[in-house]
Amino acid sequence: MNIAFIGFGKVAYTLSRLIKSPDINFLTSTEKRSNDTIDLINKSNIEVYDSFREALENAEIIISAVTPSKAVKVADMYGPYCNGIYLDLNNISPDTSEKISNVVDNFVDGAIIGKIDSKNPTLFLSGENAHKLLFLNDFLNVNIISDNMGDASKLKLLRSTYTKSLSVLLIETYDLAKKLDLEDEFFDTLSITDGDDFKDKSLSRINNTLKSSKRKAEELEEILNYFNSDELDMVNAALNKLK
Amino acid sequence: MNIAFIGFGKVAYTLSRLIKSPDINFLTSTEKRSNDTIDLINKSNIEVYDSFREALENAEIIISAVTPSKAVKVADMYGPYCNGIYLDLNNISPDTSEKISNVVDNFVDGAIIGKIDSKNPTLFLSGENAHKLLFLNDFLNVNIISDNMGDASKLKLLRSTYTKSLSVLLIETYDLAKKLDLEDEFFDTLSITDGDDFKDKSLSRINNTLKSSKRKAEELEEILNYFNSDELDMVNAALNKLK
Repeated sequence: MNIAFIGFGKVAYTLSRLIKSPDINFLTSTEKRSNDTIDLINKSNIEVYDSFREALENAEIIISAVTPSKAVKVADMYGPYCNGIYLDLNNISPDTSEKISNVVDNFVDGAIIGKIDSKNPTLFLSGENAHKLLFLNDFLNVNIISDNMGDASKLKLLRSTYTKSLSVLLIETYDLAKKLDLEDEFFDTLSITDGDDFKDKSLSRINNTLKSSKRKAEELEEILNYFNSDELDMVNAALNKLK
Repeated sequence: MNIAFIGFGKVAYTLSRLIKSPDINFLTSTEKRSNDTIDLINKSNIEVYDSFREALENAEIIISAVTPSKAVKVADMYGPYCNGIYLDLNNISPDTSEKISNVVDNFVDGAIIGKIDSKNPTLFLSGENAHKLLFLNDFLNVNIISDNMGDASKLKLLRSTYTKSLSVLLIETYDLAKKLDLEDEFFDTLSITDGDDFKDKSLSRINNTLKSSKRKAEELEEILNYFNSDELDMVNAALNKLK
């Protein structure tokens, strides 16, 4: 089976190393790619074509792994060459997922949960053809959410609504605890009900959020744009606080 | 050792059953108590005196377990009869704890974490004499927070700041998930990172909060009154949402 990548960054690179099988070949093209990308492709020992058209026409599965802002453009350009399944892994919104489904056939909405290069890489997939990708379960965690195109990206957004707001709540209460000189005690008391790893997990959430607060704020803005923001008091407060 | 209760409701009743030792006697009085309380006292087989003065003067430890609003009044009235340690378990604010410490000697600030009749009853204690109550560890979980009077109630308030706001965040995201018809999937995806019991724990938090939303809102108001409310975006949002 041939799987072609559009885009070859961390996601494609990691997948090409995770999915190791004598029955699976990876294809891509260096057409109009940056030197960095070409270097990464050469490091990966995958089949390289001069044009994307050629690579994609030879593939049963196409994986689009570019950036959220280029997802629709790429689907427009290359969708017509798709003979099999078109899987988008660009962390797109449910609206974008709908746009893409209008321009490519056999579209599967995909969402990477957490980081692709984590210990436990997890994909959410949805759409009528999602079940055809179940074989990927041999190599990473694949959850078929439903037949409804868009459910994978909706669920990722939901998860993100919770985890990002939670991180801001942790920042707020941790600040309070520090002022009272009770930060260790704060973590200890919550460990009783929330598990021994509460402290480590919480500090990692706090640090990740503070380290990239601008990006997290943009992601919260996307959430508020997609959902009915009037009802989301907690998410609005989290955005305010991050700003 | 004699331990006297002021107030005999669920807390005193449960403690008198948890703390079983041939060396420990419990005392109380039926003076001006309601019929319900007298029934509970009679059910408990503890030593009953006609007056609180008598009961308290015979005790090495006095436990005040009335209600938050009566904690100071009771300390004023009965504090003078205290010959030993005066432990308050009334879920009082750090301010109230300070008031009581001004009217009784050997005051220990206590806070019950969760419910006293839970599987894992836990007490936070603070104050210079708190360590003298460490023997209670044979019967329930006792955490000595510090020598600083008030730290136990501060820590309880901090914990409550986090858990009550978290419950509201769960309500908000669960509502969103229900609208998208993805509530089971929402819990499943969070279980990956937050533990297998995430769903049960979250639903129990959601239900407890919705069941007593008025009381939870009052508790959030107390938190905002005690801390500098301007900086607490998430707690303010939680209060708004509950209202």
